[in-house]
Parts: sequence; C-alpha cells; structure tokens
Amino acid sequence: MESQDFRYRRVEKQIMTLINAEAIRPGDKLPSLRKLSSQLGVSISTISQAYLELEKKGVLASRERSGFFLAPRALQMPAPASRPRPAMVPTVGTRNHLIQKVLEALGNKDLLPFGVACPAEELLPAKTLARLLNNSLRNNPAQALDYAPVTGDPELRRQIALRSLEAGINVTPDEILITSGAMEGLSIALRALTKPGDNVLIQSPSYFCLLQLLENCGLRAIEIPSSTSGIDPQDVKRAIERFTISAAILVPNFNNPDGSLTAADKKREIVELLATHKVPLVEDDVYGELYFGEQHPGSCKSFDSGDDVIYCSSFSKTIAPGYRVGWMIPGRHYNKALELKTTTNICTATPTQMAIAAFLRDGYFERHLRRLRGAIHNQMESLLLSLHRHFPGDTRASFPDGGASVWAELPTGIDAVDFFFKARELGIGLAPGAIFSTQEKYDNFIRLSCTGIWNESMENGVRKLGQLVQEWGK
Amino acid sequence: MESQDFRYRRVEKQIMTLINAEAIRPGDKLPSLRKLSSQLGVSISTISQAYLELEKKGVLASRERSGFFLAPRALQMPAPASRPRPAMVPTVGTRNHLIQKVLEALGNKDLLPFGVACPAEELLPAKTLARLLNNSLRNNPAQALDYAPVTGDPELRRQIALRSLEAGINVTPDEILITSGAMEGLSIALRALTKPGDNVLIQSPSYFCLLQLLENCGLRAIEIPSSTSGIDPQDVKRAIERFTISAAILVPNFNNPDGSLTAADKKREIVELLATHKVPLVEDDVYGELYFGEQHPGSCKSFDSGDDVIYCSSFSKTIAPGYRVGWMIPGRHYNKALELKTTTNICTATPTQMAIAAFLRDGYFERHLRRLRGAIHNQMESLLLSLHRHFPGDTRASFPDGGASVWAELPTGIDAVDFFFKARELGIGLAPGAIFSTQEKYDNFIRLSCTGIWNESMENGVRKLGQLVQEWGK
Repeated sequence: MESQDFRYRRVEKQIMTLINAEAIRPGDKLPSLRKLSSQLGVSISTISQAYLELEKKGVLASRERSGFFLAPRALQMPAPASRPRPAMVPTVGTRNHLIQKVLEALGNKDLLPFGVACPAEELLPAKTLARLLNNSLRNNPAQALDYAPVTGDPELRRQIALRSLEAGINVTPDEILITSGAMEGLSIALRALTKPGDNVLIQSPSYFCLLQLLENCGLRAIEIPSSTSGIDPQDVKRAIERFTISAAILVPNFNNPDGSLTAADKKREIVELLATHKVPLVEDDVYGELYFGEQHPGSCKSFDSGDDVIYCSSFSKTIAPGYRVGWMIPGRHYNKALELKTTTNICTATPTQMAIAAFLRDGYFERHLRRLRGAIHNQMESLLLSLHRHFPGDTRASFPDGGASVWAELPTGIDAVDFFFKARELGIGLAPGAIFSTQEKYDNFIRLSCTGIWNESMENGVRKLGQLVQEWGK
Repeated sequence: MESQDFRYRRVEKQIMTLINAEAIRPGDKLPSLRKLSSQLGVSISTISQAYLELEKKGVLASRERSGFFLAPRALQMPAPASRPRPAMVPTVGTRNHLIQKVLEALGNKDLLPFGVACPAEELLPAKTLARLLNNSLRNNPAQALDYAPVTGDPELRRQIALRSLEAGINVTPDEILITSGAMEGLSIALRALTKPGDNVLIQSPSYFCLLQLLENCGLRAIEIPSSTSGIDPQDVKRAIERFTISAAILVPNFNNPDGSLTAADKKREIVELLATHKVPLVEDDVYGELYFGEQHPGSCKSFDSGDDVIYCSSFSKTIAPGYRVGWMIPGRHYNKALELKTTTNICTATPTQMAIAAFLRDGYFERHLRRLRGAIHNQMESLLLSLHRHFPGDTRASFPDGGASVWAELPTGIDAVDFFFKARELGIGLAPGAIFSTQEKYDNFIRLSCTGIWNESMENGVRKLGQLVQEWGK
C-alpha cells in the first residue's frame, strides 16, 4: 500500500512534469483540488498537500478564494537539447589533468557541495553505523581483525542476495563477490573481459572515473548517446555491428551525470542484442536504489539468461562512501573475477563489511533509503527551482527520476571549464561537462549534485552562478 | 641501549647457530657461564638466562654441578640444500587450482595454523585497536563516513613517514600513497610499470600471490634463486643482461616462504645494477618489521638515488590483516600510481585508516612490535626444535633471522602436494612448495608458519607430520 508521504510527492512530480512540458505556464491557474483529485484518483487532502508543498517551494502562488496559480518564475526549464551525436570512433584518453583539479575541488569542504556526488553527511546514518561497527568489534574481536574471505563476509553476501530481488536479480550468496566499492568491481570486470587495445562500448556522457578506468586499462571507448530516455538499443546495435567490441559498460539507472533512465523493455533488448553478438555487459547500478518512483527501476542483470552480465553496485551512494563496500555478481566470469580480486588486494576490509552487514540484517536499510530518497528528491526540486529563478531562459536542465545529479546545459558560448574555475573562486563546487566524455563535447554542460539539504547559502550560490552566466562575455 | 630481554635472546640465537652448524653436538658440554660471558662480552646472568630458556625448550639439559649439555635430540637441522637453479626462462602460469585449495585450507580455523602467514589473533592488539576505532567514529563521525583522500588519511601518512626512517627511507607524507594492503600496492606497481607479455624478474621461491599477480597481468616470470643469504646480485646481473625486463619484484627482507634476508651491501648493489639497466624495482617489505635482530634490516628503497624503486608494505603482518591498510612509496612513478589507485577503488576505507593512524600516533606500535617479534621468534624456535624431535635426520629447514615462516625440505621422494592433502586430513594446515614457483620445483618442500603461540596440539601436530614422513612410501 502506497504511503501518504509517497502519494503527495508523486502528485508534486506529476505537476512538475506538466510545468516542465509547458502544459501549465506561469500565471496559469492550477486545476481545482476537487478536479485534480478525481483526475488522478487520489484524495483531496493529498492534492492539497502537494499544492502547499509546491507553494512553499515558490512554484505555486495562492490567491484567496481563487486557488493556486503557477508562480511567474516557477520551474519551466526544458531538458537539454538533443546533442550532436558523439562520433562513433574508438577514442582514447581523458582529461586527467582537469579531472585531477575537479577531484581536488570535490574534496574541498569549504566549497558549496554541488560538485559532490555522494549524500551529505547529515543524510547518512553515521550514529547507527558507528554503533553497529562497535558492536561487531566487541562481539567478534578476532573475526574483525582477520582477513575476510576473498569472496566477502558471508552475512553481508546473504543480505545482498536478499536485497537483489528488488532489482529483479535472483542470486545466491555464493554468486556474489564483495568489492571495495563499485569502482573496484568495474575495474575487476574490465580486466577480466578485455586486454589493452580492445574497444569498449560506453554511453556518453559517462562518469569520468569510468573513462579514466578505460584509459588505465589501455582500452578504447566507443561512445553511444545517453539521452533523457537512456540508452537506445538501436545505437547499441549500430556500434556492435560496426566494431569488434570486447565489452559494454553501461549505467542503465540514473546515469551519472545526466541521470538518464533506460526503461525495462530497452534493458531487455540491449541484453539480448549484446548476447547475440557475444559482447559481455558490465552493468553499473550504483544509483539504482536512489529512485523517486514507487519501485526499483530493475536491472539488465534480471534479463541475463546467458549469465554474461557482470552486475556491480555499492553502498557508497546510500550508506557510507568511506566504508568502501560494494559488490559484483560476475555470472559466468566468476572464477576470473575471484582471481583478480585476490591479486588486487586479497579481500575487502573486514570491520566495515561487518557493520554494513549488520545495518542490512537489522532492518535499517529500507527505512534509511526511504528518508534518503525523499531528501534527494526534495533537493533536486529545490535546485531546479533555484536554477529557474536565477538562470537565463535558454538554460536547460534534466529532471531525472532518480540518482543524485542534474545535468544542465548553459547557453551556447559559455565554456564550462572556465565556468568551473570561476565558480570555485566564488566558493562553489560543480563538475564541468568536458570531463564526462573522451571527445570534445558537453563544453557548455555542468553537473550539479543534489546530495545535501537545501539552505540559504545554496540558494545564494545558485544566484551567483546565475549572475556569472548572465554576465558571461560582457 | 640493548635491553636485557634482547641480550639473552641474542645469546640464545648464537648458541642455536653453533648447534645448527654442528659446532656443538648432542651430548657435548656447553661452555661454562663464566667462559661464554667473557667470550661474548655479556653478563653471566644473561648467559645463565639464555641457558635456562634453552633448557626449558628441551635444547639443553643440566646436570647438577656439571653445567649444561646439548640434549640428545636438540635441534641440529641443516638448512635446505642448494637446489638446482631455476631455469632462467620466461615462464607463465601458476597452479591456480592448487593455490585455491591451499587458500581454502588457510581459511579453515579447524586446522592447526602452520599454513597461516599472519600472526594469530592472540598476538594482535584487538582491544586497543577496537577502542581507537570506536574513538575515531565518535570523535569524527562525518570524516569516518566520507571518502578518504585518494592518497590516504593525512595523519596515517605522517605516521608512516616517521616510521619509514627505521627502514632507512627518508620520505615526506606527500610521497606516500595508502593502499588496501601491500598486495594492492604491488598490483598497482606492476600495472604502472608493465604491459601484458613483458618479462618480470622475481626471486624463487616466491609468495604464490605474487605469481598469480604476474599471471593476471599477463606477465612472464624470470626466476632467480633466493638462497639462505637472499638474492645474489650476480643473478640479477645475468638476468638483466640476457632478457629485456620491464620490472623486478623482490622481497629482500625475510622472503615468504624461505625467510631469506638479502644483506645491506647486496641490496645496494642490486639497486645500482637495476638503475644502470633502467629496470624499476618493486620492493615488497611486508616482513621487514618482523626482524629478530637488533634493528630493522633496511631496504632497497634507502639506496634509491634514481627514485626508481616502488616500496610497498602494510600492517597486515603486524597489526590487523583484516583492516587492509598498507602503503606504497612510488617514487617517480607517483602520478601513474595515483591514477591507478583512483580507478582501482577510489580510496582505501576510512575508519580502518583512522584506527591504524591512532595506533601509531599514540605510541602503541613500537611496544606491540617488540612483543610480537619475541613471540614469533619463540614460536619459530619451538617449531624447529619440534621438527628436529619428530622428523627424520635428512629433513632440512631454514632458520631465518625474521619473518614468520620456516621453509623445510622433506626427504627426497616425498611429494609435498600429496603431503599437504594428507596433513589436511590430519587436521593440520601447511603450504606445499609447488605453489611458490612457476616451474616444477620445490616438490618436496613445505612452508610452515610460525604465527601462533606454541602449545601441545602443535607439538602433536608436528609429531603426526613426522610420522607421515617416516612412513612415506612404506
């Protein structure tokens, strides 16, 4: 049964979608409570709550006895335009020097955290986790000091196996391999599947660490577009027909940076296409749990009848980035992955695995996730509203159904790398689009993270960024 | 100033060396307290304490008014024979299936722990570490949850920089990169220095995970002998003159499994030779702190004027294997190593780094090491005595000056892999020699770990192993 809390949020989102599509324009009167209640099949009090929330956020204004109107400056930012397609040629190399600068800025706590891709500390369960870790050390002192099995803590693997059902994955604990974060799983997967010089299919834009990983493995990237509706199976088909590709590495759920979601039927189609051409898929699902809808958006792994999908995820975006606990489900590549895990670092740290296993076992995870998703959803709406208030009309921004970032396209002519450095001078962190591709693209894009709790300095930060945009080139 | 505790141990060791060299034979009278006191320049009470300790261990027997005699069955095992030199040809491949079996046995707590290469839990500082970890979580909850810097916890790097002086290494915290154990450092180092198909110089026998690492990186091993006196620079010279070698990976201090120590002048010579031929050296020093002598046996890195040595070590053999905290000093390969660390797993887990940093900062490490070294030294002596009591006279065993294992050569004709499986049936863990080389060598060798505290079941275990040897082939 859907909760009240979820219902009004869904209504809020539906109204935002109408606003985004310009079906409702600034100054327009919103449908009456009674009318929308009957249209959407929810109670009047739910609609009322949604309207009041949107009023608090400045999207709606109410006039006495006249109902709600769309506030003049409410959110109505269109999604980023269809971009020139990435050139479908194997490319090597990232912008390591630039990425290094960005990473330094991400670690700088003095900057406004629009650059940080992990939930803010106030959204993470520090106290509970500390207590569980301490209990583990006290109750099992010898186990906590000792190597964990190479495969990972058995209780943790059991909990992950149970949890995997959410993503449609039916797996036993023995098919799971614990890794030190998802990046380690991705690194092991690519090392298992490829050799230097090979081509790897990847979506564009892509998380810059994935591009660095490809470069460090001596691999060439074949970029296919990641649009607002995710990955198009036709693009996958064209690429695998044209190139010899050793592996695909995709983020079907809320791709970082654009937040795009690839629908279930497309996931299935992509898995089948890749299987036909015997191209193994590495699926990165670190954002899968951060959905704003009613249920987990599923996975490619759930359609993996050939056991050729290596699924990777972690608790870095949900529980504790610094604990470095993730996992992979390597399918038929299990033995190779196990060997590589052994020679990468023998095993993942024991105490942090024990704490996370206890967090799942004791039932904290689901409750925590509900709170976290709501907070990030709120933050994203607040950011989009703020962008709308302060940025010029030809700015575009994605409004994803989950994940933790907004992908914004600045007016043509603004170089986002220059913008990144100027923002840093103003004390604001963000990630410039250029680092999310091996090609010269996304030069006027920025990624803005939605991982904190909205406050006045964030509002001021976006205002300053907006001024920067307005005054660009003047 | 040398402590009393250290002095009598040194005397004990000197006597054992004489016994091993058969300068004193079973039944022989030992020098009088007064005579040995003047010969060795130590007090009579020190000699007396050494004699009494050796009596407790069954090496010496005392007869009233007649002094001490070498007990009939005392230790007199010769070192392993010079082996046929490893064929100096590039070789690929380890015995992964066998290694897998050995690793399973190592993880089996029901077996006697002669297979385990890490200190037993009773020798590790579980309580102190748990307290320090808990304090870190309580005092810095946000920091403990967050990613550590890619380079590692700053306080930990500071402590390691201070500690490195022991190994003769002058380094700033910024030149240190924290890794998830030493294996991760070795893996990053080899990936930074080589590409698949390259040749790598390695000593023989070598730790089996190193061999697996080479295999997983697609590298070919050029094995040079590791004798009781460590690595011979002439062997290094011959190899680098004959082959194109991309890197050397060596364990100059207490090599696992044979415990061999390469002397300081040879370390220097090897570093100079490799530098002349522009072959970078990866130095694995995980056992460096487990010396039985008066001071740290030094490092190759200390002679590294060309900054071309990548030094790797960890706290896995000294504080907490399961915490997965190690470090590397990559020298001029720093930037490449940093990139690889990022795409291996972003950073090492934060809470375990904080706990180990506190352990070092608060001065626990030195005290702990003194106790640990003494315990392992004792254990090694007890094991060697027991081997002598129960194994046939043509058994040979190393008696290293540090490290944590004894490398024993069984009488010819005994297949150590069969022996490993039979021992496991008897509830005894050990490692068969075959896994320590890529070539068909060490077929009648076993590695016995000295990482616990001697007890009756260990004595019984060695007795059973001795019977197995005695009855072999009958």
